[in-house]
Amino acid sequence: MAAGLAAGIKASGALDVALLATADGRPVPTAATFTRNLACAAPVQVSRAHMGTNGGRAAAVLVSSGNANAATGDQGRADATAMCHLTADGLGVADDAVLVCSTGLIGIPLPMEPIEAGIPRLVAALAGGDAAGADAAQGILTTDSGRKEVLVSHPTFSVAGMAKGAGMLAPDMATMLAFLTTDAAVEPGPLADLLRAAVADSFNSMSVDGCTSTNDTVVLMASGRAGPCDPNVVATAVTEACADLAAQMAADAEGASRIFQVQVVGARSDGEAHRAARKVADSLLVKCSINGADPYWGRVASELGSAGVDFDMDRLSIAYGGITVCRGGVEVPYDRGAVADHMAGSLVNIECGLGLADGNGVVMGVELGYGYIDENRTTS
Amino acid sequence: MAAGLAAGIKASGALDVALLATADGRPVPTAATFTRNLACAAPVQVSRAHMGTNGGRAAAVLVSSGNANAATGDQGRADATAMCHLTADGLGVADDAVLVCSTGLIGIPLPMEPIEAGIPRLVAALAGGDAAGADAAQGILTTDSGRKEVLVSHPTFSVAGMAKGAGMLAPDMATMLAFLTTDAAVEPGPLADLLRAAVADSFNSMSVDGCTSTNDTVVLMASGRAGPCDPNVVATAVTEACADLAAQMAADAEGASRIFQVQVVGARSDGEAHRAARKVADSLLVKCSINGADPYWGRVASELGSAGVDFDMDRLSIAYGGITVCRGGVEVPYDRGAVADHMAGSLVNIECGLGLADGNGVVMGVELGYGYIDENRTTS
Repeated sequence: MAAGLAAGIKASGALDVALLATADGRPVPTAATFTRNLACAAPVQVSRAHMGTNGGRAAAVLVSSGNANAATGDQGRADATAMCHLTADGLGVADDAVLVCSTGLIGIPLPMEPIEAGIPRLVAALAGGDAAGADAAQGILTTDSGRKEVLVSHPTFSVAGMAKGAGMLAPDMATMLAFLTTDAAVEPGPLADLLRAAVADSFNSMSVDGCTSTNDTVVLMASGRAGPCDPNVVATAVTEACADLAAQMAADAEGASRIFQVQVVGARSDGEAHRAARKVADSLLVKCSINGADPYWGRVASELGSAGVDFDMDRLSIAYGGITVCRGGVEVPYDRGAVADHMAGSLVNIECGLGLADGNGVVMGVELGYGYIDENRTTS
Repeated sequence: MAAGLAAGIKASGALDVALLATADGRPVPTAATFTRNLACAAPVQVSRAHMGTNGGRAAAVLVSSGNANAATGDQGRADATAMCHLTADGLGVADDAVLVCSTGLIGIPLPMEPIEAGIPRLVAALAGGDAAGADAAQGILTTDSGRKEVLVSHPTFSVAGMAKGAGMLAPDMATMLAFLTTDAAVEPGPLADLLRAAVADSFNSMSVDGCTSTNDTVVLMASGRAGPCDPNVVATAVTEACADLAAQMAADAEGASRIFQVQVVGARSDGEAHRAARKVADSLLVKCSINGADPYWGRVASELGSAGVDFDMDRLSIAYGGITVCRGGVEVPYDRGAVADHMAGSLVNIECGLGLADGNGVVMGVELGYGYIDENRTTS
């Protein structure tokens, strides 16, 4: 069950709180991954503590948007704790069966009065069915252009999810939140393992601007109503759902019309391939080239060479949209018109071959143009 | 001695080759540091090899600009080797007594014909004195707005230098080259040590866009004509000269009017402080805030928390231009007008206190605005 409403955090009057809860309000196996940022927000600190004491079982996730409750000190922690307590009271569960997430501006105390008034209304709204669920998917957004939802159906179970994260043009509040539920019965341990793997292959293979938010959180709850399922099959479905939500985030780059995918093959290991792909995806010079649709592969080579991974220039190959422009570390003749056509599209593919071993990795990146600067130069 | 001339690499007809040589054309103690980029250019490969066999003694440095001779494979290495050989022939020294540096576009074969014709003319021009020296300082530039030179005088010796690197608006050819000479007598070993330390405290404490060039090179030659000097005193003078050249590069950000200095104190170590300062200086979100003169310190906190160094949010303090905006990890009341005035200037100071130990570090950064994108979206 889920519900969302406008509590009054956002001055615009938009939906700004959401509650996701199990159908009967009882705790179910739950896994969560959190930002690795050491300046993590109060809700991350509180949710992480709850996951440490609740035995991997939670009943609800409360989400607020518009204010990150980050860099808010002891008061922020007290507020996040109070949000869980109020929700737990309403559902009749222990405090640590509730997780809390917030997203929005950093460094500003949370306006608790509207939130305290909103929580009982949210609990009551849980009975609203699908419409209430759509409100929840709306209520977790900040500058996203629309709801991000996914449903992966399998003969014996399904995985549903919603996410927040507006790609390029909202890194101001770059928090990435995703909430997934499945009716498959999976115990907390295997559930945590499969969520970790799914996040690595989806959200963690995407880079908007190389900044790690203070609030990133992904939660997966397994109600078990569909009965026991092969964890490997569930893992595949969860990864598919996460990848779909990640793609929706990358595509939600209003004003920024071009994204790019960096695939590195032939690295010493998958880890090295991923690191090299991320170095290219995060490069300001490469991002500018994508904005200008300029196949300046020398910049890609330079980033690969400084990525901190094993590298041999003489074995390097680079292709744009499958058209090889560099082989053996030097430029080769290629169809410039075809490459220009590919780079004029909304998704540019850069394939890099290191020629060393079998390591593979893919990271999605976003162009750097005026839009990013317009959105991020001031918070007002 | 130094000379520069227009060989014809640059289509514009601007000066594009330079030669620096000892007064009598004989090898002297020489130290050099090179880019750590594994996709390093042919001239870096050849110069590094020469420093490996010449016993730390070189007679000349040949520099070409307009083409980086990077990602040019075996032909590029042959070209760089030929450039040293021709110069060595002209000066009557061994090939490995000559170092070579290039800067410009990556991935395009070097036009050797004009260079081969230019080298004998350069050798002949060495007799031209100060005017020829100014031509050298001009000949190593790409999109720099002007020559970058420095002279540090000491009662018993002096250090002179010239550099290339156009700060923010030329990362297209982001190579940073610097050539220093001193008349102090210092043996190759101590000379290498003091150059390494000077580079760490100057050029390596500056970040235009986080990209590591394929061609970065710093060379220091010690003629010894002033006789033996205390290496510590020479080290201080060399560091001063390097810092002066680095500041000239940071200031040479045409169109980009604002730079910023990130100072981190109270880190676990100087290394951790430097890493944290660099993370802040390289952050797209922080760079955009500097462009917008917005004191959004939450972004600074978020970068410090994800810098991979020891961090405790509750001990964090942040100040802009000496005005504390965050203490104990939360915002404190501050004079917003005074901070706005400071941020409207051309140099913004961000001071971060981690409150953990005594580690200190400073890194210079450059704002991110339209100018960077205009300059870098295409190479044409």
